[in-house]
Amino acid sequence: MDSKLTITPLGGIPQVRPGDDLAAVLIGALEAAGLVLRTQDVLVVTQKIVSKSEGRLVRLADVEPRPEAVEWARAWDKDARQVEVVLRESVEIVRQAHGVIISRTAHGFVCANAGVDASNVGGQDVVTLLPEDPDRSAARIRERVRDMLGVDVGVVISDSFGRPWRYGITDVALGVAGFRPLDDLRGRPDTEGRTMRSTVVAVADQLASTAELASGKTSRRPVVLIRGARLPAGEGSVVGDVVMPPEVDLFR
Amino acid sequence: MDSKLTITPLGGIPQVRPGDDLAAVLIGALEAAGLVLRTQDVLVVTQKIVSKSEGRLVRLADVEPRPEAVEWARAWDKDARQVEVVLRESVEIVRQAHGVIISRTAHGFVCANAGVDASNVGGQDVVTLLPEDPDRSAARIRERVRDMLGVDVGVVISDSFGRPWRYGITDVALGVAGFRPLDDLRGRPDTEGRTMRSTVVAVADQLASTAELASGKTSRRPVVLIRGARLPAGEGSVVGDVVMPPEVDLFR
Repeated sequence: MDSKLTITPLGGIPQVRPGDDLAAVLIGALEAAGLVLRTQDVLVVTQKIVSKSEGRLVRLADVEPRPEAVEWARAWDKDARQVEVVLRESVEIVRQAHGVIISRTAHGFVCANAGVDASNVGGQDVVTLLPEDPDRSAARIRERVRDMLGVDVGVVISDSFGRPWRYGITDVALGVAGFRPLDDLRGRPDTEGRTMRSTVVAVADQLASTAELASGKTSRRPVVLIRGARLPAGEGSVVGDVVMPPEVDLFR
Repeated sequence: MDSKLTITPLGGIPQVRPGDDLAAVLIGALEAAGLVLRTQDVLVVTQKIVSKSEGRLVRLADVEPRPEAVEWARAWDKDARQVEVVLRESVEIVRQAHGVIISRTAHGFVCANAGVDASNVGGQDVVTLLPEDPDRSAARIRERVRDMLGVDVGVVISDSFGRPWRYGITDVALGVAGFRPLDDLRGRPDTEGRTMRSTVVAVADQLASTAELASGKTSRRPVVLIRGARLPAGEGSVVGDVVMPPEVDLFR
């Protein structure tokens, strides 16, 4: 059946360090798994290894927390230095309660802790920041894969975000390359022949969720290969196309 | 690779009518495609055919719109009778602007138009309502599949919802049977060996998004078979486990 999708998580990815050529690491893992990339394949790469390869790390030992961070950390059993980094990465605090900080990042993402995540790199306590420009991160991987293998793939940089109204996190796209993250079906007929008036599908976010389903959070499989997805042709970006300006957001 | 996921949309589903045995229809389509269901397979079924099979239809000719519905419909070029049904299906209006009504349904779902959708059944203008109890709808399909085939599958009833902060719709689960819709990983080690303190994954929603990726909105493939997903063992429900009471929702 040609409409079938296959989702393959890649194991065997080594610890990624700042300056690593992430595309070369991915290609190595694909080769080790006996997988040959094809045009229209999608590589979904979790944010954390992208951030590490780009050196988006802050050593907590170097962080001087502001008084509010110290106070909040004391009240909620957090590391004040990590709270400080969260505040630095936030351009707007959406909600701060019960030990959770939900904020808007400079990219426009609304998420817990501004995407700042504890990690350990080389035995030191560090936190990872979101990539500075995740669409550019995705484009860089795509270009490097094309240079090395001569294949045009789609790339998604993913992260796990909470959302309003429903418990649980789902993976969404932070950055994308090689296709448009939204499939605008307005004006096209639906399955009953009716013209769709408002249907715009968040393809990149669904690719990210699909990848998470296959990889899970407990095994080290930060890269997933999705084969068989229909990708909206063209170029686009998550920050430019998916992130909604607050002033037009009816759900807020 | 045993962790691989395969996603197969099913074609050849006929028009569904009130009273149809939906499970029998699905089993027929699976057989026609040469697919044999296995334990742990997941069937993702779009809400619309579930609603139709359950007779969750309202003939617009029978609807008397209230004055507010008439006024709103006139201002935004809508059908006043359809607006009336949306208002009847809403227990709380979250936002009403620019021709869009975002409301909370009796189930607790927050979505555009309370999930009411235009359709045509037997040549008449009707609208479909969401299933009254989508978890029970899922359970009914699961039980019928077990009775007919002796196989325990997971079932997800899905629909496409918008969300705050990001453009585009993604498919989410309205109902689930045969597994828990959330995978609670709190207390378990992540890929770096750190104890996860807040990670609860919305598996059922990610299954719904994965199915949409394979089926699309322009071809009649309202059922998708997902094979290879790790399903959280146990029983649960979307309305009971995933829907978040407004008073605890930090994202609001």
